[in-house]
Amino acid sequence: MDRYDIAVIGTGAAGLSAVINAKIRNKNVIIFGTKELSSKLSKAPKINNYLGFYDLTGNELKANFQKHIEEMEISITEEKVNNIYAMGEYFALMVNEKMYEAKSIILATGVEYTKPISGEERLLGKGVGYCATCDAPLYKGKIVCIIGYNKEAEEEANYVSELAAKVYYIPMYKGAYDLKENIEMLNKKPLEIVGNKKVEKILFDQGELITDGVFVLKDSISPSQLVPGLDVSENHIMVNRLMQTNIDGCFAAGDCVGKPYQYIKAAGEGQVAALSAVAYLDSKK
Amino acid sequence: MDRYDIAVIGTGAAGLSAVINAKIRNKNVIIFGTKELSSKLSKAPKINNYLGFYDLTGNELKANFQKHIEEMEISITEEKVNNIYAMGEYFALMVNEKMYEAKSIILATGVEYTKPISGEERLLGKGVGYCATCDAPLYKGKIVCIIGYNKEAEEEANYVSELAAKVYYIPMYKGAYDLKENIEMLNKKPLEIVGNKKVEKILFDQGELITDGVFVLKDSISPSQLVPGLDVSENHIMVNRLMQTNIDGCFAAGDCVGKPYQYIKAAGEGQVAALSAVAYLDSKK
Repeated sequence: MDRYDIAVIGTGAAGLSAVINAKIRNKNVIIFGTKELSSKLSKAPKINNYLGFYDLTGNELKANFQKHIEEMEISITEEKVNNIYAMGEYFALMVNEKMYEAKSIILATGVEYTKPISGEERLLGKGVGYCATCDAPLYKGKIVCIIGYNKEAEEEANYVSELAAKVYYIPMYKGAYDLKENIEMLNKKPLEIVGNKKVEKILFDQGELITDGVFVLKDSISPSQLVPGLDVSENHIMVNRLMQTNIDGCFAAGDCVGKPYQYIKAAGEGQVAALSAVAYLDSKK
Repeated sequence: MDRYDIAVIGTGAAGLSAVINAKIRNKNVIIFGTKELSSKLSKAPKINNYLGFYDLTGNELKANFQKHIEEMEISITEEKVNNIYAMGEYFALMVNEKMYEAKSIILATGVEYTKPISGEERLLGKGVGYCATCDAPLYKGKIVCIIGYNKEAEEEANYVSELAAKVYYIPMYKGAYDLKENIEMLNKKPLEIVGNKKVEKILFDQGELITDGVFVLKDSISPSQLVPGLDVSENHIMVNRLMQTNIDGCFAAGDCVGKPYQYIKAAGEGQVAALSAVAYLDSKK
């Protein structure tokens, strides 16, 4: 297996700035995220505070970012990293059924804007999960509810439906849905996941549903769940001015390390994280 | 006198990013520097690591910065700030014979690339000075040497020549010089400023010169000389992740707060400094 020098997680301003700086320094780098780059950026109506670009829409700024990475021949690996384990000499990145290895990592995962549903955190690991493809085998012949926050969740639902007895899909977004016929879609608002020792049911704004498991598939999972052992305070990854976290070889940048949530702040931090990762790699030689 | 909300010192990437962010937040802001923005930037042959701009020369990136501030109707005050005093409720900025007041300041002065000449630091205040127009009256009827690192130094030399008996000008740059006729120009390399209790002479690569005073006029003076009481370590201003210094209401960003010396890192920090200054001003209301 290829062991990358640097793995960047996230394709917002911080992740992109990190990957271009790592590549300029001749590092073997992989970046995980989406070719859409950042949904937050796409939705920005007007950006005036990114020095060098005046009066751009989010999509226009995004197009400039896109052009930059294309000209540098950087391609994005469109897979979701579910867990990262510090193995000492390297990091193991669990990507559904695959695994990647990298000598250092840069977390640029943004901030979780999605509030957890009542009961979600308490029942995590007790019927609530964040990776349907990982845990699907546990629900063979059982009832599963999938609360999906984005289109990628549909694929996971389709996969789970091959094993589970019954899959319900609760979309938290609008659009066209591409679901298998045996999946039942519920257009209801989930209010609470209920259960004592394990998940028993979901309460909706209208009615309730008995279920064995609930997958909540969001754009990003919290950094402390992503990287066990990572120092996190009030949902932000703790870093110093060199963007070092408490884990050797693990760096972080952008919204996930704290406010202000701004593009050029994130880009600046991504650069610093990349240069710190390069220095870390050089120190290991 | 107008008391500004925020005074930004420096027109590199950090200062410019600070001023656009301060203006977007509707603050009454003044920025000191040069319309050339940054000589370091002008000299950069190729910049690939400023996310959104690929394969630009320093001058091309500078043109984008210039356009940005012009479209926001921000003008640069081309004056040199010699000292800043924290007065409690506000800061007093000494600009040659003038004074400006601001409720908060953002230092974005870059790093001093000019090594001090041997003897310069030891004899500072004992015949060596950094502001010719401030101290000129001390040299009425005396001999003064001016070591100028930029064109602005010529104006100061011309002013001093009205009071001093004799002014020598030692340019540390190439170009056309605009000096009064009574000023003698020396194209020699200064090696050492010599004196026991006070300046006595300058040693050159060829010969020496008896003088009463030496003004060393650089692009920037060190932060600790600029702002008395400022926490500085190894020539960098100490800041936390909010770009706060040890002085309440005084923020800093860019190369002056530490490595890496990079444009988008500086721009990101300038933004954070501006938003922290805005929060500081709001807390005082």
